[in-house]
Amino acid sequence: MPKPDLGTSLFILRIMQFSPFFNAHHSPIGAFSTLTFGYKGASGGPGIELKGPADESLYIGIESQVQPNQFFAFPWFAGSDSVAQSDYDVEGLADTQFAEAVRPFPDSQISRQFGANTDVWLAPNLTFSTYSPIRPVPNPESASLSGLKNSLCPCVTCELVVDNLKGQHEVKAFFGYAGSNRGPNMRTWQDQGVTGIGQGRTVAIATDAKSAYAGIGFQPESVLTPRDTQNLSFMLGNCALIVVPVPAGTKAVIRFVVGFYRDGLVTTGQELSYLYSRYFHNVESVCKHGLEHFEETKQVSLASDQALKSRLSEVRFHHLSHALRSYLGATQLLETPEKKPVWIVNEGEYRMMNTFDLTVDQLFLELAMNPWTVQNVLEHFIDRYSYHDEVRFPNSDQQFPGGIVFTHDMGVGNAFSARGFSCYEQAKLKGVFSYMSCEELVNWILCACLTIDATRDQKWAKKILPTLLETLQSLMSRDNPNPLLRNGIMGLDSSRCKGGSEITTYDSLDSSLGQARNNTYLGVKTWAAYTLLESVLRLLNESQAAKTAGDQAKKAADSLIAAADGFGLLPAVIDEGNDARIIPAIEGLVYPFLTSFFTDHPDSALRKVLKRHFELILRPGICLFPDNGWRLSSTSRNSWLSKIYLCQFVSEAILGLPADTKADAAHWKWLTDEDNAYFAWSDQMVEGKAHGSRYYPRGVTSALWICTDGINPFEAIRNCLLGEQNSQSVAQSTQSTKAPLL
Amino acid sequence: MPKPDLGTSLFILRIMQFSPFFNAHHSPIGAFSTLTFGYKGASGGPGIELKGPADESLYIGIESQVQPNQFFAFPWFAGSDSVAQSDYDVEGLADTQFAEAVRPFPDSQISRQFGANTDVWLAPNLTFSTYSPIRPVPNPESASLSGLKNSLCPCVTCELVVDNLKGQHEVKAFFGYAGSNRGPNMRTWQDQGVTGIGQGRTVAIATDAKSAYAGIGFQPESVLTPRDTQNLSFMLGNCALIVVPVPAGTKAVIRFVVGFYRDGLVTTGQELSYLYSRYFHNVESVCKHGLEHFEETKQVSLASDQALKSRLSEVRFHHLSHALRSYLGATQLLETPEKKPVWIVNEGEYRMMNTFDLTVDQLFLELAMNPWTVQNVLEHFIDRYSYHDEVRFPNSDQQFPGGIVFTHDMGVGNAFSARGFSCYEQAKLKGVFSYMSCEELVNWILCACLTIDATRDQKWAKKILPTLLETLQSLMSRDNPNPLLRNGIMGLDSSRCKGGSEITTYDSLDSSLGQARNNTYLGVKTWAAYTLLESVLRLLNESQAAKTAGDQAKKAADSLIAAADGFGLLPAVIDEGNDARIIPAIEGLVYPFLTSFFTDHPDSALRKVLKRHFELILRPGICLFPDNGWRLSSTSRNSWLSKIYLCQFVSEAILGLPADTKADAAHWKWLTDEDNAYFAWSDQMVEGKAHGSRYYPRGVTSALWICTDGINPFEAIRNCLLGEQNSQSVAQSTQSTKAPLL
Repeated sequence: MPKPDLGTSLFILRIMQFSPFFNAHHSPIGAFSTLTFGYKGASGGPGIELKGPADESLYIGIESQVQPNQFFAFPWFAGSDSVAQSDYDVEGLADTQFAEAVRPFPDSQISRQFGANTDVWLAPNLTFSTYSPIRPVPNPESASLSGLKNSLCPCVTCELVVDNLKGQHEVKAFFGYAGSNRGPNMRTWQDQGVTGIGQGRTVAIATDAKSAYAGIGFQPESVLTPRDTQNLSFMLGNCALIVVPVPAGTKAVIRFVVGFYRDGLVTTGQELSYLYSRYFHNVESVCKHGLEHFEETKQVSLASDQALKSRLSEVRFHHLSHALRSYLGATQLLETPEKKPVWIVNEGEYRMMNTFDLTVDQLFLELAMNPWTVQNVLEHFIDRYSYHDEVRFPNSDQQFPGGIVFTHDMGVGNAFSARGFSCYEQAKLKGVFSYMSCEELVNWILCACLTIDATRDQKWAKKILPTLLETLQSLMSRDNPNPLLRNGIMGLDSSRCKGGSEITTYDSLDSSLGQARNNTYLGVKTWAAYTLLESVLRLLNESQAAKTAGDQAKKAADSLIAAADGFGLLPAVIDEGNDARIIPAIEGLVYPFLTSFFTDHPDSALRKVLKRHFELILRPGICLFPDNGWRLSSTSRNSWLSKIYLCQFVSEAILGLPADTKADAAHWKWLTDEDNAYFAWSDQMVEGKAHGSRYYPRGVTSALWICTDGINPFEAIRNCLLGEQNSQSVAQSTQSTKAPLL
Repeated sequence: MPKPDLGTSLFILRIMQFSPFFNAHHSPIGAFSTLTFGYKGASGGPGIELKGPADESLYIGIESQVQPNQFFAFPWFAGSDSVAQSDYDVEGLADTQFAEAVRPFPDSQISRQFGANTDVWLAPNLTFSTYSPIRPVPNPESASLSGLKNSLCPCVTCELVVDNLKGQHEVKAFFGYAGSNRGPNMRTWQDQGVTGIGQGRTVAIATDAKSAYAGIGFQPESVLTPRDTQNLSFMLGNCALIVVPVPAGTKAVIRFVVGFYRDGLVTTGQELSYLYSRYFHNVESVCKHGLEHFEETKQVSLASDQALKSRLSEVRFHHLSHALRSYLGATQLLETPEKKPVWIVNEGEYRMMNTFDLTVDQLFLELAMNPWTVQNVLEHFIDRYSYHDEVRFPNSDQQFPGGIVFTHDMGVGNAFSARGFSCYEQAKLKGVFSYMSCEELVNWILCACLTIDATRDQKWAKKILPTLLETLQSLMSRDNPNPLLRNGIMGLDSSRCKGGSEITTYDSLDSSLGQARNNTYLGVKTWAAYTLLESVLRLLNESQAAKTAGDQAKKAADSLIAAADGFGLLPAVIDEGNDARIIPAIEGLVYPFLTSFFTDHPDSALRKVLKRHFELILRPGICLFPDNGWRLSSTSRNSWLSKIYLCQFVSEAILGLPADTKADAAHWKWLTDEDNAYFAWSDQMVEGKAHGSRYYPRGVTSALWICTDGINPFEAIRNCLLGEQNSQSVAQSTQSTKAPLL
């Protein structure tokens, strides 16, 4: 299929029958910041460290060419704050109110070109674009200053193109927002050719347009059509605008930057600051840097979107774009007072920090873009968020040796949890909020082994080797205390549960996926962990341990194969009478596939069983919703897009099945559903409605779609995201050899 | 009337027929911080730099002695956050919810002893007290370190007394709150015998009780009765509690401190930080200091309240207490990077900074407690918030020389306005938001002259002498450009109005008080300004200027006297056909009265006229509401408590009229009205309902009630507020001489 150029009307969402009015993040990397907008009303705006959209009005529009002093704006605002004004004017005596003169463009006049790096909104005589490129984060301990500054500058670059070529009079273009009532008041500033608005010291919008002016009021009209320019000194009300007049007969390209900034220590438990604050001293300097690098940012963004479009179907491009945006808005690069970097991804609306079951899903993207962040997180888990437990059989108080395990997360909302504890896990439970000791252990092994393979970082591999060996031992302890009775599958719960049962990441589905012990989903992942351990340990000259891991992998595969019934169906939980059918049984296949060790041979029997199982269940009434969306468990109404994306990749790239384009469309419909579109990208969908895991970073499993064959997968993803579409041609994917490990 | 000891049931609000459930501030000085509570529901909590109550749940209570695991708390909380929990547990699978076990004490079991420094809440077996003393702020440029630390430590001291003497089992006492969803997550900590909870780095509650533990959850029950103590590591949900078990047969006194902290630069326009951050490095150190100085803080608080009660009627004690609290919560002591202090009082719900028409009302308290802050503000106005204008007659474009004038304020909500501009004033208006050039000029003169007299600070007086001389010239320019035609009253508007009309502080009433030109209220204040200028300039050996000021004072008095009609009634606006009757005509009498220059002689004619006027209008249907409350203007429904308090003082201390105790009761009813009680102390009351100027600092005009005779007034106020009730006996007030000026 031929692909038209970027900038034409391909990918215009209105034409796709989907509403363009969904919120999306527009974020720098590492700043836990976002300019969220798209959904109608006061539903977005600039936000730092929030659980969801800032719920502020965003005013972006122009004056009518035919009716002076009448304005049209994108529909991201609520009515003006007349209540606030009446607080000052108790008896309604003031002559300061302005008739409402800012109206939304009619829906029919608005279209959107939505990408991962660019988001372009078109209306009559006005184009509003944002450029927030997916950039790798260089390792601060080795990167160049300019590279770091450019990657980490906490801003979003925006552009207004105003076409007044046919206009008979000057029109005003404007960009502003109404800040939260809980923060400091709005402000304006002018400095060295830059005009800005902002709230406090943390958020600002600035332009270098020479004719720009800024003002504050209870309503946008008081800034757009002030009674006297002297009145632009007014600062009450929370609506602040930058206004740029565009003369008749001209077309103006106006650059804006939305800057974010938090100074000093920002966390508790561990006292850390934003790494960017090493390089930028206030939000004004952030904006200035953004304006100075405008063109570069724009070109990088255009190239990346172009490359992505050349690799993906239209709807998958939108899925991945949306997911990448929500991920970026959740990233947070901090540093200790000793300047040691600390990488955090916050868990969307929950804001849990480095939730490990998300780390393992974000791994694919991060190994492509900045594998040092994975290493950083894995070491953080070793140093502070690991613990040693004992294990128990169900309904027994007898404890057996356990081993090293890892916490579910590192804290929540800028509050680090205590050493060795997550913010989430509780004893004596069987469902949500119980411990995930075994799953996080498996996740650590998978992340570590894949990182060693992807980075070929010998030094790091040797550094974590003792932990790798410990994890192998710990994982076997959870199988059976008696080596002779081991079957490769988790059979004992952590003593931390104190009689409760461990859960998996799928805690909020039903027990088909939520129970950890004997779970097929976790079983396949455990098999993958042993498989990767075997290869990595062998390469690290730990042949004895490698052999042990290999034996365990074999046992796990055998157990899983044996669990299939006469039809080839696998139970969700082995030997516990749970006949639910689960798609994520196939999830674990992804890990060996992405390694350089991968050959078709060792897992072929298991793969065959899983493929059979999967083909049997991906049917209406079992694991397909009536709208063709994928249902992760036949017994739950709750399905998760991040995991669907991942299993789609497994289905296509590993099981060799065709892409389910109907499902792609159904899933996009979920995301843009009127009830869901406010939350940007969401994960948990209960019959297509977002009920949890909203505003969520985990959907970047879809980055795997870029690499369809598993050959040098992370390089393929990286090259594409960096806009190098030619160097990663289809031809290359037929390559069958890899660089040697280590 | 004999006064019982503090600690007995005098001043128990329930007995007074007024509801005890009104919000009040509990604040340190200079931190723009408050622990607000009292109103039912999630209506208070700790807040920094907010426009109103934080709207958070506060949990303070104890376990039932008869029903273990059942709890009673003061009614300052809403239901638990089950919605938040369901976000994690989409399908409701969790077994983590607890049955509701915390109920409010029945209203009938709660009583309150409300004071300025102490606020004591009594319930069965539980007494909750706060100690937040009114302290003077020492001048940071000369004070001792320990004095500054004690005064400025940004915390509120609290005490729980739990009587379990008759209990048969241990009961748990608790203190905690549910933080805002817009901030970072809640956290707990333990360090050096201190147990704490908090949100981010800015707010914390801590105790030194040895047996205390802390926890976080979606609901208080999960911390009060955890399934396992290991689960106290849980950090989701925004409810954090400190729990202290009290053994059977014991009575426990448990100390708590609520700490506030903001680090680094906190303002824009001028970049300032909190002065306290020089001495305290985080909120934990604030709490620690507060705990270490607990007993001293408590004793100071008790003494001050005791002294206040000995001077005031019960209801006036409550008015003043309430007003002082709202004032403290609005104070903000900042400093420049060069360590120069900057004193700010924020304007309640409006948060305007150093609004000059409030400064002049807060002057009486500040001259008593920390006159250096007045000097600081007046110099700040000279340096940055003065401007030079021209003046115009109404309906004329011709401009005449004006002079120095001052802005209405210095900015809003931590955002300083531009040099020479307020955040508030706008051109081309005739009402609310117009310029207040002349009134602020008068306010500057009154503040400066009273400060010189009160402080006897010769150095400072000489420093500001050039400005004093300028202000005299400027004030006359606003009378008439032709010296021969001057009548002592403002006749021209500032050119900043650009054809609009200047207003007074009473902008939101009708034109009876809102219009500045020829206004009787402003006329009397202008007379007072000339009167004070005359005396101060004479003492500074500026005899020519002093004579000029004296002449202008005479002209003003003559004009005002001549304005009275045949009955002795003064119009609100002279010669402009406005026959409204206004109480604040008498307001300006207060300034000469408080000076050491005051004798009965020079103003006796004016005073007589004003007294006659006042006696005629303080009648039902004119300036009394049906409920006996005072109505500032006969033509407005809007009346302001700060100004009523001030005019009450003038009526009693200067005009010699008896105290209107019916009015005091009516006004207290306004403040504690169900519709108003949420807003703590409010100023603007429209027929008894708070409609503006809520959560407001201005009511400290009531501090004047402490000094009934004008002899050494600021010393009298200071001594009483510092608890020195004996040194300031009634006998002393007969003293007729004063220390020599300068």
